[in-house]
Amino acid sequence: MISSDFRKKIVDSWFSYLQIQICKSFEILENNKLKFSKREWSKDNIREGGGISYLLTNGKIFDKVGVNKSTVNGTFPKKFRSKILGAEKKGKYWASGVSVVAHMKNPKIPAIHFNTRFIVTSKEWFGGGMDATPSFKDLKESKMIHAELKKVCLQNNKNYKKYKKWCDDYFFLPHRGETRGIGGIFFDYETKDWIKNFKFVRELGFSFINISKKIIEKKRNFKWNKRDKEKQLLKRGRYVEFNLLYDRGTKFGLNSGGNIDSILMSLPPVAKWK
Amino acid sequence: MISSDFRKKIVDSWFSYLQIQICKSFEILENNKLKFSKREWSKDNIREGGGISYLLTNGKIFDKVGVNKSTVNGTFPKKFRSKILGAEKKGKYWASGVSVVAHMKNPKIPAIHFNTRFIVTSKEWFGGGMDATPSFKDLKESKMIHAELKKVCLQNNKNYKKYKKWCDDYFFLPHRGETRGIGGIFFDYETKDWIKNFKFVRELGFSFINISKKIIEKKRNFKWNKRDKEKQLLKRGRYVEFNLLYDRGTKFGLNSGGNIDSILMSLPPVAKWK
Repeated sequence: MISSDFRKKIVDSWFSYLQIQICKSFEILENNKLKFSKREWSKDNIREGGGISYLLTNGKIFDKVGVNKSTVNGTFPKKFRSKILGAEKKGKYWASGVSVVAHMKNPKIPAIHFNTRFIVTSKEWFGGGMDATPSFKDLKESKMIHAELKKVCLQNNKNYKKYKKWCDDYFFLPHRGETRGIGGIFFDYETKDWIKNFKFVRELGFSFINISKKIIEKKRNFKWNKRDKEKQLLKRGRYVEFNLLYDRGTKFGLNSGGNIDSILMSLPPVAKWK
Repeated sequence: MISSDFRKKIVDSWFSYLQIQICKSFEILENNKLKFSKREWSKDNIREGGGISYLLTNGKIFDKVGVNKSTVNGTFPKKFRSKILGAEKKGKYWASGVSVVAHMKNPKIPAIHFNTRFIVTSKEWFGGGMDATPSFKDLKESKMIHAELKKVCLQNNKNYKKYKKWCDDYFFLPHRGETRGIGGIFFDYETKDWIKNFKFVRELGFSFINISKKIIEKKRNFKWNKRDKEKQLLKRGRYVEFNLLYDRGTKFGLNSGGNIDSILMSLPPVAKWK
């Protein structure tokens, strides 16, 4: 039988591997002329883990893209425990994950976000998702993204419809009555069949690399002007609002002694408000 | 004896008056070449009040300044009640206030923030404060601001030291281990002597007009370059983080059916993150 320790180890290695693959793929999109800079960090108590952040800024494609991996453990603050499955009583957790946020130079290319994670409390489960935030409508692109995500869900007997709705519900700004973007998939609490879930999470990782490549290659040479950029910067303002007001990942990070620069790496390089 | 209804009415009028005085003073600083635009809003249920927002953007002095006044009432969502004095049981409230956030064009001039409010639940009290967020250290300016605030506190038998510390404690970004700016004063729950407290709040309003004038006139012709602006935009990123992650005024607004554009008028026109 596979022990919990073994599961942690193997998932942790996968996330490290995936992180490198994503960075490589993005560097190729930058024609290998620009490289990610790497930064390692650990929690104040180094026994509670840490992470590795890769950041690339001022590219031809990416204004700013962060690819973060962290593996941490500890005890949640009391106030936060009730919010985490299986942490209600003792608050102990172990968590590992990869998250990516890419803000594009070309306003015609949507911002993209991806995350997969494995969390162990008194329960253990996978979560994650992928979604896109365009500043300009593009129905064809939106269909492509959803079709790709649907495919990887179906191949793994995952309920795409449920995950799509979850994504729409999650990336919603109630104070604006707006969605953050065009959605994608979002899932959490996948506790049941570790082997199957882990396979799904791995395939979703590869799928993210493919989808992001497709999105970017299609539009990398699209023309844009100052007004387009302005629209993108206002859209990014909404992105900031979502991430600071509502995002569970941000709250998780702030409540688990995470590294601030890594947690807030998702914030755009520039944002505007009217 | 003064009734609660009378207190509400007279405070509400004062805030309307103060709002106009602040706008006039700022328009004079813009050499009267630029005027505030006025926007009125009401809550979905118009019986629960609303507000008037004045906004001025792209000035010679102000990149963006909002001067908001609102007078609203209603019932807080259950989850939020425990956070408001006297609203724990029924959640009923009436609240009126003026708030100002000014983001300056010249990075050498600090962003300034001012607010005074009167809140009625099963208790009633005044709160408010003023503080500054420079991008560049200026000890002399900081001393002037604190001296002026100290003066108005002392004239009204208010505990300046306590208010100053409260401000430092409140405008603190725990995730950064940084203060938002150089502080000022912050006070709340001034329940006791309505007449004296109201006098203090009025004098603080005038004091704010004086201090902001002093700060701006001193530095309006200071030279600045692109690098200075860059520093200001990063500082504004922190301002956004504070306002969306922690600010009680933002949370109050979002939980009392306030107007989104008015609540988030405090956000800078442009902000950056590294």
